[in-house]
Amino acid sequence: MNILPVLTQQLASAVSAVALAQGPDPTGEITLAADPSAAVNFVWVLVAIALVFFMQAGFALVEAGFARAKNVVNIITKNFMDFCIGGLAFWGFGFALMFGGSAAASGLAVGNSIIGLSGFFLTGDAYDVNTVLLWLFQMVFAATAATIVSGSMSERTKITGYMAYSFLVTALIYPIYGHWVWGGGWLANLPFGVGAVDFAGSGVVHALGGMLALVGAKIVGPRMGKFNADGTANVIPGHNMVYVMLGTFILFFGWFGFNAGSTLAATDLRISVIAVNTFLAGVAGAVMALYIGLIRTGKADLTLACNGSLAGLVAVTAPCAFIAPWAAVVIGAVAGVILLVSVDFVERILKVDDPVGAVSVHGINGLWGLLAVGIFADGTYGGVRGLIAGNGGQLIAQIISMVAVVVWALVAGFILFSLIKRTMGLRASQEEEIKGLDITEHGLEAYPADAPVKVATATGDAS
Amino acid sequence: MNILPVLTQQLASAVSAVALAQGPDPTGEITLAADPSAAVNFVWVLVAIALVFFMQAGFALVEAGFARAKNVVNIITKNFMDFCIGGLAFWGFGFALMFGGSAAASGLAVGNSIIGLSGFFLTGDAYDVNTVLLWLFQMVFAATAATIVSGSMSERTKITGYMAYSFLVTALIYPIYGHWVWGGGWLANLPFGVGAVDFAGSGVVHALGGMLALVGAKIVGPRMGKFNADGTANVIPGHNMVYVMLGTFILFFGWFGFNAGSTLAATDLRISVIAVNTFLAGVAGAVMALYIGLIRTGKADLTLACNGSLAGLVAVTAPCAFIAPWAAVVIGAVAGVILLVSVDFVERILKVDDPVGAVSVHGINGLWGLLAVGIFADGTYGGVRGLIAGNGGQLIAQIISMVAVVVWALVAGFILFSLIKRTMGLRASQEEEIKGLDITEHGLEAYPADAPVKVATATGDAS
Amino acid sequence: MNILPVLTQQLASAVSAVALAQGPDPTGEITLAADPSAAVNFVWVLVAIALVFFMQAGFALVEAGFARAKNVVNIITKNFMDFCIGGLAFWGFGFALMFGGSAAASGLAVGNSIIGLSGFFLTGDAYDVNTVLLWLFQMVFAATAATIVSGSMSERTKITGYMAYSFLVTALIYPIYGHWVWGGGWLANLPFGVGAVDFAGSGVVHALGGMLALVGAKIVGPRMGKFNADGTANVIPGHNMVYVMLGTFILFFGWFGFNAGSTLAATDLRISVIAVNTFLAGVAGAVMALYIGLIRTGKADLTLACNGSLAGLVAVTAPCAFIAPWAAVVIGAVAGVILLVSVDFVERILKVDDPVGAVSVHGINGLWGLLAVGIFADGTYGGVRGLIAGNGGQLIAQIISMVAVVVWALVAGFILFSLIKRTMGLRASQEEEIKGLDITEHGLEAYPADAPVKVATATGDAS
Repeated sequence: MNILPVLTQQLASAVSAVALAQGPDPTGEITLAADPSAAVNFVWVLVAIALVFFMQAGFALVEAGFARAKNVVNIITKNFMDFCIGGLAFWGFGFALMFGGSAAASGLAVGNSIIGLSGFFLTGDAYDVNTVLLWLFQMVFAATAATIVSGSMSERTKITGYMAYSFLVTALIYPIYGHWVWGGGWLANLPFGVGAVDFAGSGVVHALGGMLALVGAKIVGPRMGKFNADGTANVIPGHNMVYVMLGTFILFFGWFGFNAGSTLAATDLRISVIAVNTFLAGVAGAVMALYIGLIRTGKADLTLACNGSLAGLVAVTAPCAFIAPWAAVVIGAVAGVILLVSVDFVERILKVDDPVGAVSVHGINGLWGLLAVGIFADGTYGGVRGLIAGNGGQLIAQIISMVAVVVWALVAGFILFSLIKRTMGLRASQEEEIKGLDITEHGLEAYPADAPVKVATATGDAS
Repeated sequence: MNILPVLTQQLASAVSAVALAQGPDPTGEITLAADPSAAVNFVWVLVAIALVFFMQAGFALVEAGFARAKNVVNIITKNFMDFCIGGLAFWGFGFALMFGGSAAASGLAVGNSIIGLSGFFLTGDAYDVNTVLLWLFQMVFAATAATIVSGSMSERTKITGYMAYSFLVTALIYPIYGHWVWGGGWLANLPFGVGAVDFAGSGVVHALGGMLALVGAKIVGPRMGKFNADGTANVIPGHNMVYVMLGTFILFFGWFGFNAGSTLAATDLRISVIAVNTFLAGVAGAVMALYIGLIRTGKADLTLACNGSLAGLVAVTAPCAFIAPWAAVVIGAVAGVILLVSVDFVERILKVDDPVGAVSVHGINGLWGLLAVGIFADGTYGGVRGLIAGNGGQLIAQIISMVAVVVWALVAGFILFSLIKRTMGLRASQEEEIKGLDITEHGLEAYPADAPVKVATATGDAS
Repeated sequence: MNILPVLTQQLASAVSAVALAQGPDPTGEITLAADPSAAVNFVWVLVAIALVFFMQAGFALVEAGFARAKNVVNIITKNFMDFCIGGLAFWGFGFALMFGGSAAASGLAVGNSIIGLSGFFLTGDAYDVNTVLLWLFQMVFAATAATIVSGSMSERTKITGYMAYSFLVTALIYPIYGHWVWGGGWLANLPFGVGAVDFAGSGVVHALGGMLALVGAKIVGPRMGKFNADGTANVIPGHNMVYVMLGTFILFFGWFGFNAGSTLAATDLRISVIAVNTFLAGVAGAVMALYIGLIRTGKADLTLACNGSLAGLVAVTAPCAFIAPWAAVVIGAVAGVILLVSVDFVERILKVDDPVGAVSVHGINGLWGLLAVGIFADGTYGGVRGLIAGNGGQLIAQIISMVAVVVWALVAGFILFSLIKRTMGLRASQEEEIKGLDITEHGLEAYPADAPVKVATATGDAS
């Protein structure tokens, strides 16, 4: 059995060894001469980058839809600024800490099993067509992890505190766990199975983001009016379900790039299986969550369908390359159930106010995705074999990786949010929260003045 | 003249015969070794898949915009759930019924000229990179056909009935006509021209969906207040024209994948001509419809521009590969005119209430697209020659295909919708319709509580 | 030093000379046989086309968001119709005037250094897979230039006048400057540096569009209530900040195609550097503009972040291929500052009412982008060297190009808008402006009847 981590192999194969030996290649001529299929691989990765980038808009819309109108500018500004600030943070620091030492491309030679130490600011040997391609692909993944948190902390978190968080998570917290799994670090080299495996980031991106979302929401505290004195919770409805739906579609659309793009090569034709598994897990999660809700309450709850599909997508992100289509349906359907249980657990047991369900969608289902690799990997790809292929070792590696991401995210997140809370402040004042953050922090309203217009009853017979 | 159906040839060339002979190839290594250009072809098809998938969001937005606010959650839930349910239906059954016997890829050997019978659940020999790629591409097309119906039945159809419809149309009704044309069935092998030709689905997707939309809308009946006692119709305005516009843009965007992706191969450089023809027909339809409206009423009606562009896109979908750019302009312009005439006809003569114009956009213009192949195909591609290339035989094949899709859709649709009506029920109660389906069927409002906000007059001078 | 213009070289390399010599190739078989990498290049360009096309939706949303609800249908109809009308104009005339004589593909032989004269209606030798691919790519760029103007003239311009403008700018004004730079015209052949260089259109698209926006806004005059008697300006808030945010995300998403697609070839692996530079300039512009605003006013202004990112993207569009990532950060950050200064300048000094900031975002930052080539081009690509590579000649070529675009756009725009004003009329009547253009010109409301719904205070504690 192959004990090299799968992704590191992929990185290695995506960059011709010949090209790598010749030093930085800023025009790509050396790379192309060494491997003419670099062209199609570059196209594939760039398309995936664009799709994953666009997921930022999806997150913004979902979170805006679930917020009240008075906090909409706040939440969309956070979603916009986190990738902007994170972009500079990952350019300067994050990428080097994550991929230094991986030798995945030019300029990434220095690092150890805990942390990377080369590639800062994409200068020197990192000014190379392969290195910058890898940077941008990883950049949009880092932005995804970072933006998950905004949802769980929605409607009561100060914009300045959130922007400080964005910088630090992208520069430091995300890259370190990422290095352990994708940068050739210790988790990738565990002596179980092929080492911990996370194909496209159920753990690196979603579980990490979801666990940070949990600790962030806990530290900032619930919104005013969310919990009653007796500990029971109230529903605080969002303001626009069309935004939730459109945002979910955009996320689903982007997920094709997120998962299938993670081969980093189109010459790896497994991309079609990955895309199919992604699709099937997403639809299975939606169907399961909606129908359970329908049976329970008699109502077809759109928000369950949306979050169910996202739960399935998150869960299949780690195993998508290693499993058969039927397993994707199972993983997605289970994710839909986990979602429903987890949302209850977070609200009723943990007493955490998570307005969009980020902890359950990304955190818990991200962990489920890591576990699912150890169960359903069928051995057809990358030598990864789970329980159904008669191998228990991979499951051990996956569980270690799950523990690592939970511990790392909770500890690092606790330190980070506590630090921000004590210095620049994390939570808006009661006055601001009542008035809405849009006016107080942004000087803008989402729907000013003569916005949508004539008065009518929502449930009436107008027209 | 070549009498093999064009699409079957394309399927054959998209999968190397060498690879096909070796049995299932779940990693793609055999396929790539046999044909290195598989990489670029996979990228092309996967990009097209993502784009066509995203069209679901376009349909949802257009239909939401044309609905009243009280029914918005209902219509977007339908648009979301139809592709989810359809995804499972097409995975389990639809694909096998449509492509079994086509021998287009591994695991699709069994079937006859009426129906396919292998590939169920993508198991066995169908766990192959080529087969699953074809599955996903066909899946998003099936979802497109299914979702057309939601528009024409908007604002009065029960969600549970609609979800049952979604399953059955994707598992059964769509695949059967699809098999006849794209799966090597009898229409593809007609002894006229090269057999019935429908490059990207004016007939298979749009005419079928549009005819189902017609029979569905007829059986469910008009919305309360649509028709007066004397048979004249009232305008029931939608609630958000921005959604209509954005949805149309998303559909147009996705259509590049829909049409140009239907080569299933980027090594077929005709893709550029297809994309150009798609674009030109769409813009010609919009210009024609808007300007005729402007001349008639003095108003520049955005909804005519949007539906005109969609009409042009639908019409060019069958002929897009076989015609020159000038013909695309003509086909699109004619589609804009057909749209206007058809909308009147459906409402005034057929007395059918179609809130979004789905019957006219997809149904009637889908038929026009099939016909246009027989007229404008210029013989430069796939040996398809229409009247302008001096060949009348193709026109006969096209007309037979038109008759087949109309008869099949109306008969199968009538049985399907009648069945649902008598068992689980198709139409919401009067009370529900008055109150709005969002509250009654979904327990949600699209714009709850403190949604868009200050009161002002739409036409006033606020700010 | 290479004195051939960079883009003309790219066009030449993107079409095999062998293929070109054989006359039109409507199926692509000759082209593919001569150069098998045509497949991946076609995919790359078609993906870019789809992305740039989708930017139309981004413009529509940004401009709709910044408009008042009563003028929303008007602005989105303009954004929809300008690419439709422009599509026909560029098909018939614009492309031929721009690329005739470039010999970039079949059917483009006739033209001189001032204007092109072949390729009209894509007939004859222009019915070729390469020619039509180039046409569609250029078409979506032309539509981008045209649509910039709608923003600056928003809320008071007649739809019929605007549609006439759309035709003339796409058929005539855009192509002529475009020919000078991209069609082998006189600017491309200046005897300084490698001639004027504009990789993806900071000048050709954005500065031209932005300068037309300036002259158009000046001629149509400010909105009622914008300026007080003493010349001071009032803020007229838009109606939906979510649309502004979503539109900006769509534009950013599309910009990956806009810039990286402009190689017209995926075998040019520099595409990864271009995509990275595009991303970095966009985020740097947003961070700079938002933080300066935050320091000034204490508010985190979303609209500054959005326009700041767009300013950075516009500015990096010309230099993106020629610079290192650090320079993209500098160019983007400077663009954010230029934006703030320019917005003030346009409003306070020029007394021009530009509701969306189009003049500053596209016009002024487009000029900055042209200049930046002459400063930051590092000589790694296409032989283009700016000041930092020790070469002053390129800067001279860039400055000449800047002067040319300003003069051409202002003069041609002045003639065009004056002509429309005197014939069909440019400005809506006072009555129409008060009532809103949606009702008066379109017979539609953006949010009719029972649109968003219950009454609550935006800043209150509803729910």
